[in-house]
Amino acid sequence: MRFHTRKWVKPEDLNANGTLFGGTLLAWIDEEAALYSIIQLENSRVVTKYMSEINFVSSAKQGDIIEIGISVKKFGKSSLTLKCEVRNKMTRETIIEVENIIMVNLGEDGKSKPHGKTEIEFVKDRLSNQ
Amino acid sequence: MRFHTRKWVKPEDLNANGTLFGGTLLAWIDEEAALYSIIQLENSRVVTKYMSEINFVSSAKQGDIIEIGISVKKFGKSSLTLKCEVRNKMTRETIIEVENIIMVNLGEDGKSKPHGKTEIEFVKDRLSNQ
Amino acid sequence: MRFHTRKWVKPEDLNANGTLFGGTLLAWIDEEAALYSIIQLENSRVVTKYMSEINFVSSAKQGDIIEIGISVKKFGKSSLTLKCEVRNKMTRETIIEVENIIMVNLGEDGKSKPHGKTEIEFVKDRLSNQ
Amino acid sequence: MRFHTRKWVKPEDLNANGTLFGGTLLAWIDEEAALYSIIQLENSRVVTKYMSEINFVSSAKQGDIIEIGISVKKFGKSSLTLKCEVRNKMTRETIIEVENIIMVNLGEDGKSKPHGKTEIEFVKDRLSNQ
Amino acid sequence: MRFHTRKWVKPEDLNANGTLFGGTLLAWIDEEAALYSIIQLENSRVVTKYMSEINFVSSAKQGDIIEIGISVKKFGKSSLTLKCEVRNKMTRETIIEVENIIMVNLGEDGKSKPHGKTEIEFVKDRLSNQ
Amino acid sequence: MRFHTRKWVKPEDLNANGTLFGGTLLAWIDEEAALYSIIQLENSRVVTKYMSEINFVSSAKQGDIIEIGISVKKFGKSSLTLKCEVRNKMTRETIIEVENIIMVNLGEDGKSKPHGKTEIEFVKDRLSNQ
Repeated sequence: MRFHTRKWVKPEDLNANGTLFGGTLLAWIDEEAALYSIIQLENSRVVTKYMSEINFVSSAKQGDIIEIGISVKKFGKSSLTLKCEVRNKMTRETIIEVENIIMVNLGEDGKSKPHGKTEIEFVKDRLSNQ
Repeated sequence: MRFHTRKWVKPEDLNANGTLFGGTLLAWIDEEAALYSIIQLENSRVVTKYMSEINFVSSAKQGDIIEIGISVKKFGKSSLTLKCEVRNKMTRETIIEVENIIMVNLGEDGKSKPHGKTEIEFVKDRLSNQ
Repeated sequence: MRFHTRKWVKPEDLNANGTLFGGTLLAWIDEEAALYSIIQLENSRVVTKYMSEINFVSSAKQGDIIEIGISVKKFGKSSLTLKCEVRNKMTRETIIEVENIIMVNLGEDGKSKPHGKTEIEFVKDRLSNQ
Repeated sequence: MRFHTRKWVKPEDLNANGTLFGGTLLAWIDEEAALYSIIQLENSRVVTKYMSEINFVSSAKQGDIIEIGISVKKFGKSSLTLKCEVRNKMTRETIIEVENIIMVNLGEDGKSKPHGKTEIEFVKDRLSNQ
Repeated sequence: MRFHTRKWVKPEDLNANGTLFGGTLLAWIDEEAALYSIIQLENSRVVTKYMSEINFVSSAKQGDIIEIGISVKKFGKSSLTLKCEVRNKMTRETIIEVENIIMVNLGEDGKSKPHGKTEIEFVKDRLSNQ
Repeated sequence: MRFHTRKWVKPEDLNANGTLFGGTLLAWIDEEAALYSIIQLENSRVVTKYMSEINFVSSAKQGDIIEIGISVKKFGKSSLTLKCEVRNKMTRETIIEVENIIMVNLGEDGKSKPHGKTEIEFVKDRLSNQ
């Protein structure tokens, strides 16, 4: 699993108990899954279709730095299944894990559309082939 | 299921495709589950521990009004299991459903603590008993 | 008066004194008045035209849960007059009251337009008539 | 009336109709009234107590620049009454006017407290007297 | 230099150390430079092209009031060079200074375009000439 | 240079022209510099002291994905000098570059304090040494 995006837990991210608001965390995961899929599928019309069960393993507090990891579980015909883990950057302690996030590739009509991808690609390879 | 909180989908709630951002929706659900639990358990120290799988059944667009419904599935000893459904207010079409959201009641030490509740209570009844 | 939408007062909602920022509260009221009107008038082009005087009766602090109530005072030809009360969910103490909020129904040209409504309708009744 | 603070209407400030969200405008007015009072009363514990009726005279759209003006109507013993006008910077067209906004000066105990001020002061004069 | 826009430092503006988040401050400066340029150039298509070095001289904390000053350094053919200073309103202590901010005037095609302005104009003079 | 954090440009990130708001971009850079420094210096009290000149090379539009890269230029006694580049993830086109960002390590008294670091460390190595 590759961890890219990092977040610094700021006052605006806290719930009323002063710990990281779970809803903010879920929003961060959804954004990361969306942008990872857009990069892989080379299509900006990608939507979240399904998330498997979510365990809030530990929390985070103001000032903590967290990092969000994504790995690919399966390339479907018009979908992409991802796994996501969020952890504390300094201690590597897991904060939350989602085993399956299914993203669907859409066409211009807003309906699911085959994406033609079968494996992870890196942007640098795409660019060097041009 | 009782539907209380309503949201008006505004530009700040959209993803880059111009539909309701899934992460925003998850944040709204988490907030509603938290505040529902706080009301029932009469304790403001309540955290989200688990969400079962999430199906994004349909989407919403700018200007739509959605409503968030919560029902209680089970009172545990120090937990409360909720069901949540979000639907379009005007068409009653389901947008998202989460079958089980487990909220945990915490004590001042931040550890789970029995809440002593076994059934739904209404604030008006609590107040009239005083 | 019916109380629907609930809010959990989080750090991002506070003023620099650490109590609920009045401006945030006014924004919540305006959103609730707008969406209530859109539901009743079955038209998404509705704007706030007038608010009568506003008394900030009490405040709220981080972690409080508030609920926003709306009732209809009058159906005009192209307007709808609402009353709004915001109260603390747990104590039922009033936080703010606005006696008259006038919302105006607009046509596609952005000008006021008769809405043809004379009484409160419930979405479930509309749907069951179809 | 002096116009100080200016705002650039951005997508995040719009309602679902694509015009400036009234609630955002009210939040801006409340912030301006608060900070103006803090400056005049030399006390950061100041709260909004009352706003007289609000007419939404005209609206604003994305890209517009608005400016917020405040003038003092009356120094009370522990209060300060302000008038506020928001207008379009380029056309000077009025967007909203609030005739009376009553701000209350608080002591450390959170109760109203005499502020000892009877007229407008300018920060530069205060500093040059030191 | 004229100081117009004022901000009240609220919890949502803080970094994880509890002081004003530098990024928020930079966003405020950029907004002020943009709206000042739009007013002077009478064109809403204006973009930030360059900022000279930025010294964070002092910080601000929750509850502080800051004010943002802009002055014009040079009218170019299709650009406008501004100077910006942010200071604490109550103490006049400098928080940040940016010596040169170059804004570029764009045409409808998104390319730089001469603006035809050579000196500061005031909106009231423009309006009284009509 | 290592590129970690990625952002998906959403409506809330746009200026009134519909392109990525420069102020939002500067806020993202400042957050990334801060969290990178916190990780390297193993101290959460780190502040931005200086940014060298900033060229806005190109812009980004709604739906674009950008990535933020940081490299270390110099370890000072109580400071850390970073270089930052933001680029479009799909095209690798540079959006903005900042040659020198000086971050200062603070002690509990809020004054600069030697950090004792002289080279880049990786969290995994720190953890495996324990």
